[in-house]
Amino acid sequence: MTLSRDECQALDATDPLAGFRAEFTLPDDRIYLAGNSLGAPPKSAAARVARAVEREWGGELVGGWNTAGWFAQPLAMGDRIAPLIGAGPGQVVAGNTTSIAVFQALAAALKLRPDRRVIVADLGEFPTDRYIAEGLAALLDGYEVRDWPHVGDDVAVVLLSEVVYSTGERRDVAEVTARVQAAGALMVWDVCHSVGAFPVDVSAADFAVGCTYKYLNGGPGSPAFLYVNPRHHGTARNALTGWYAHAEPFAFEPSFRPAEGVRGFAVSTPHVLSFAALDAALEIFERADLAAVRAKSLALTSLFIELAESAHPDLRLATPREPARRGSQVSFRHPHGYPVVRALAERGVQGDFRAPDILRFGFAPLYLRYVDVYDAATALTEVFAAEPWHDERYTRRLAVT
Amino acid sequence: MTLSRDECQALDATDPLAGFRAEFTLPDDRIYLAGNSLGAPPKSAAARVARAVEREWGGELVGGWNTAGWFAQPLAMGDRIAPLIGAGPGQVVAGNTTSIAVFQALAAALKLRPDRRVIVADLGEFPTDRYIAEGLAALLDGYEVRDWPHVGDDVAVVLLSEVVYSTGERRDVAEVTARVQAAGALMVWDVCHSVGAFPVDVSAADFAVGCTYKYLNGGPGSPAFLYVNPRHHGTARNALTGWYAHAEPFAFEPSFRPAEGVRGFAVSTPHVLSFAALDAALEIFERADLAAVRAKSLALTSLFIELAESAHPDLRLATPREPARRGSQVSFRHPHGYPVVRALAERGVQGDFRAPDILRFGFAPLYLRYVDVYDAATALTEVFAAEPWHDERYTRRLAVT
Repeated sequence: MTLSRDECQALDATDPLAGFRAEFTLPDDRIYLAGNSLGAPPKSAAARVARAVEREWGGELVGGWNTAGWFAQPLAMGDRIAPLIGAGPGQVVAGNTTSIAVFQALAAALKLRPDRRVIVADLGEFPTDRYIAEGLAALLDGYEVRDWPHVGDDVAVVLLSEVVYSTGERRDVAEVTARVQAAGALMVWDVCHSVGAFPVDVSAADFAVGCTYKYLNGGPGSPAFLYVNPRHHGTARNALTGWYAHAEPFAFEPSFRPAEGVRGFAVSTPHVLSFAALDAALEIFERADLAAVRAKSLALTSLFIELAESAHPDLRLATPREPARRGSQVSFRHPHGYPVVRALAERGVQGDFRAPDILRFGFAPLYLRYVDVYDAATALTEVFAAEPWHDERYTRRLAVT
Repeated sequence: MTLSRDECQALDATDPLAGFRAEFTLPDDRIYLAGNSLGAPPKSAAARVARAVEREWGGELVGGWNTAGWFAQPLAMGDRIAPLIGAGPGQVVAGNTTSIAVFQALAAALKLRPDRRVIVADLGEFPTDRYIAEGLAALLDGYEVRDWPHVGDDVAVVLLSEVVYSTGERRDVAEVTARVQAAGALMVWDVCHSVGAFPVDVSAADFAVGCTYKYLNGGPGSPAFLYVNPRHHGTARNALTGWYAHAEPFAFEPSFRPAEGVRGFAVSTPHVLSFAALDAALEIFERADLAAVRAKSLALTSLFIELAESAHPDLRLATPREPARRGSQVSFRHPHGYPVVRALAERGVQGDFRAPDILRFGFAPLYLRYVDVYDAATALTEVFAAEPWHDERYTRRLAVT
């Protein structure tokens, strides 16, 4: 039974998360369904970043490392991310990029399983994870990268995304972690496409990595994070031993000596201005009930599937239909995905396209309404009816899509 | 012959760089001699960063990767840094941190000299460089880190700072590079403490790394950069093979294939807000004559040495007296360096202390005046006369100095 537009508006009126929408800067002329790629700005981010530039940098100058808490950012922000992924304080360090964190996690895992020479990743992952695994294998010699779901006794570590970036499939973290660890391998989760979309729990994993610029709305290129299970603190080795990971960074000792705990996986000087925007973004999540976020996310994605699925005979749902197996995005496959996404953007609905044939629509529950879902699905149906793949305005490729 | 305060004011009146001072936010109540640690903010940085948050992120959302040039930042900013270090277009990539760039340079160098197993660094370096070398050696097995100036035929790569962070000594880049390369090793220069202070030329080196938050004034934790000599393009391998280094990042190919040229050493998603402040900072350098910057730098540091050196019988100059062998800082050694630096800060002169006994004073020629040098030296002399090491207000250690 499909909802009407009026019924969607009624749902918005009673939505317990509805108040969050006003905290974000959103375009008047578009429905933004790419928050799974880059989240919308919290309105508070501008003032928070301005404070970092003018009051902290301008007012404190180099003293800001102490007085403005810059030096503490990687651990302080890690502690604030921790509850979003089922981790505790002192288990997460923020900074750098997801790719860097993947490298650190994989390199540490290989050293913890020195008798095993295989890294397993998924061909369907966001490629940077796999690329980093390949680069590490090439650096070390004698290692190879194999495809999931190989879990033989030669496997040192398995790297998987909780939610697959292309299809939006959500994996069963508990089941996969237990299976991998039972085979004697270590488990690294990439939660880029799940953190902030629903309650994540990677506490049983060995390592986890993620970014903060998708559902967490930390801004373009905001800091990544790395979770290190406490059972590995003191034994897991960070390959990127910058001065922030030293036991006493300001002793300027000539040789490296790792900090205890997760700070041993810090690298170096944090990108302070990028951390400032993340500060504003996390403050919002500290007031949001993640169970309510998940409930609304599933309602939004279910509604979109229901409304959009019959838009064209060649349109195929790529996302699992079972709610528990979905992240907070809906992907379809269509041979003319690219012109459809472009034509849709011209009608004010911003999704994205991923080669070769995937149309992706992300649903950020903190700032999207049921009526947005209704209107987006209506626009999609209209666009398919117009068959934009016959129109060269839409088939010409842009530099980056 | 020591200058008087009036004579210093006269020099300021005819200083060809004097106009730049008004472009920076500087405290009214302090003379800022820590620009070698963190540069002062360009006044234009606040508006530039606000534009990135409000107009780019807020206005373009995910489209900013194209329309606001975010995707192009690592190479575009690298091309703008290149002339400051004697490099050409397509030879420098910006992003991440100096420590990460050091790791990339050293790892690439080791692969280019597979029959050699020694990394040479200097015990007196800023420690992160050496720590990273140790971490890489530990990751790879069979490698060791030895101290400069060892240059035997077992040496794969030498990593040195052009200007030593503690003493301010400037090394002869051309001579050392030639000597190292003649021994069959590769040369990596760290120009953190030289870029922006004078015309740097690392074009003969194999790799160079640097930060942008010291003399370049890019802001706390602003992006680092990596120079890769064109003769290594296509052969040197990046160990951190994130998706930005892929030949076609948006093809989402399952296996890594390096981009040609220096983009093969990019890693992943740039920290966009940190790049925005750097954009404002580099715009200033694009109008500054680096030869004039060097001339003023030497005049300022010579004057400070002359005025301050006789402040106390135990004060010893740690910086080379010969101008050509100096960066843009002056360091002294004194057994009570820490209380002196703190007492000096209370009198409005901000230098810093580096264990065990170094007082550092940086002179950023774009925003410091001759009269500032005069006043700072006067304050230093007065502080020493008061012997602050007898006063526990100054001897108590702060968390981070």
